[in-house]
Amino acid sequence: MRTIDWRDNGIELVDQTRLPNALEMVRVDDHVVLIDAIKRLAVRGAPALGVSGALGVALIASNHRLSDAGKREAVADLRSARPTAVNLSWGVDQAMAAWADGPAAVLAAALAVRDAEISNSWAMGERGRDAILDVVPKNVRVMTICNTGALATVERGTALSVVFALHEANKLGDVLPLETRPLLQGSRLTAWELEQAKIPYHLVIDSAAPFLLSRGYVDVVVVGADRIAANGDTANKVGTYSLASAAARVGVPFYVVAPESTVDMATTSGTEIEIEDRGVAEVTEVLGVRTAPEGADAINPAFDVTPAELITGIITERRVVRIAAGETL
Amino acid sequence: MRTIDWRDNGIELVDQTRLPNALEMVRVDDHVVLIDAIKRLAVRGAPALGVSGALGVALIASNHRLSDAGKREAVADLRSARPTAVNLSWGVDQAMAAWADGPAAVLAAALAVRDAEISNSWAMGERGRDAILDVVPKNVRVMTICNTGALATVERGTALSVVFALHEANKLGDVLPLETRPLLQGSRLTAWELEQAKIPYHLVIDSAAPFLLSRGYVDVVVVGADRIAANGDTANKVGTYSLASAAARVGVPFYVVAPESTVDMATTSGTEIEIEDRGVAEVTEVLGVRTAPEGADAINPAFDVTPAELITGIITERRVVRIAAGETL
Repeated sequence: MRTIDWRDNGIELVDQTRLPNALEMVRVDDHVVLIDAIKRLAVRGAPALGVSGALGVALIASNHRLSDAGKREAVADLRSARPTAVNLSWGVDQAMAAWADGPAAVLAAALAVRDAEISNSWAMGERGRDAILDVVPKNVRVMTICNTGALATVERGTALSVVFALHEANKLGDVLPLETRPLLQGSRLTAWELEQAKIPYHLVIDSAAPFLLSRGYVDVVVVGADRIAANGDTANKVGTYSLASAAARVGVPFYVVAPESTVDMATTSGTEIEIEDRGVAEVTEVLGVRTAPEGADAINPAFDVTPAELITGIITERRVVRIAAGETL
Repeated sequence: MRTIDWRDNGIELVDQTRLPNALEMVRVDDHVVLIDAIKRLAVRGAPALGVSGALGVALIASNHRLSDAGKREAVADLRSARPTAVNLSWGVDQAMAAWADGPAAVLAAALAVRDAEISNSWAMGERGRDAILDVVPKNVRVMTICNTGALATVERGTALSVVFALHEANKLGDVLPLETRPLLQGSRLTAWELEQAKIPYHLVIDSAAPFLLSRGYVDVVVVGADRIAANGDTANKVGTYSLASAAARVGVPFYVVAPESTVDMATTSGTEIEIEDRGVAEVTEVLGVRTAPEGADAINPAFDVTPAELITGIITERRVVRIAAGETL
């Protein structure tokens, strides 16, 4: 099963808001439905957003009800559906490069993005496994945040691909996924993927992670990324900075695992990255249940920025950049 | 309204599990009901647990249905209802000191504990306000975790007492309470107390707090304590270590506010403090709603230990101990 794919001239994707209670597919024949799915996080995860962007352009290109100007407008709307992940606009751009050659060429470009994400995911897992086993020569206890598995990509994952690769090599000691408030991608999605793969794990609440790191529960932290600036500063799910800071304090290696498409050399440093605030309701509710008094106000940054000096290395499908050792992107 | 009080030969306490949806009182005429209330966190907060311990002993002392041995056993059960907060056993001991003088003397000792907690709470607020205004000469933006207000004490609070005192002095800029997973004491209780006091605030999820600290949203962090070791290491709600570590990294002052009864000179350092693990269900559910797949396992430390080197100062009802400046308890 793929998280997102092209079938019968449209997109099919897993509705991630329904997990872990139900595994439901959403059929997308129209870019408006796709943009809605992106905004309500039915599809999420930087690489999956890249594929969504590319396939979305293919959908727009072949839409006979739209004028040329209407198509351009639709592409712009798709491009800006979420601001922080660079992969969405990158995926749009990959498909747009074939725009002049017509819908069939656009679709071919989009399918190439999908296929590349799949092979990249497998490659990141292997490269990450080897990099970690170089420095942790035992059964590795891994902490991670958010969901970076098949659900965040098309198959396999980014940071979670490393976990799968360690497991298959019989080198996995334990997995400690953070639940990842406010939307609980760790509890709902990562735990679900680990259950499917029959990999034992221990969920932890986000705020316990730094303490467990300080008490020696973890050998390595692996996380995904939504945008990596040229200097290595990394935007990822809020809570990543907290993890990186805690790992650095106690000397636990901290790796960012992401495809090259997440590296944004046009962004010099993390201070230039726009941080999406997703509003009050995500903080004052959990899965539709009210947690705070009526009238409560909130600050809700969906992402944070981890400065490069807290990152041991960045692992992509084609290299390991050892930031802590002075290497650069 | 007092969170816990003695009335008509029994204890009355606010059922904190029902807030913020309903303000309900629990009537306690029997120590078994009290121990249950403590275990299910209907009453919580270190100073309120101290008062519960003392009033609970008064209840046991006057219980004609119990033998002498039965009374001793009941006191032992009460004493160990929660392991981390030192105040519970401290409150028990205060009342037990009058045991030989009979039930009336025990009750008088217990009421003295209650009255002392009330005046201590007000004193901590004033002392904390003055200590903070010495180092932050402007309208102060305060971050805090868990609930340390009237609900955690009898009236007013510990760390939140400082917030109330700053507010009354027109020196409060903003309050950023952490929601405080797993049991959401920040969202449910602290936000409710701030609403009651008409103090504006912005809730934040726990994992966003270190990032907001790094981006300059906060002038001072104030927290309560469940046990302070002789060297200043402090056990408090899980997430406190994460906050202290993040505050230290960016130079934001971090104060522990707690009554002298929380200082446990018999515990040399934080490594000796037992950390209660409250089990899987608190992590895999939020307010009764399932968040993780069936079969999910979890690690759930209810508290963590913040090492003294991360603490700017400890504020009690009678002193400010400037740990970062080399002062000791």
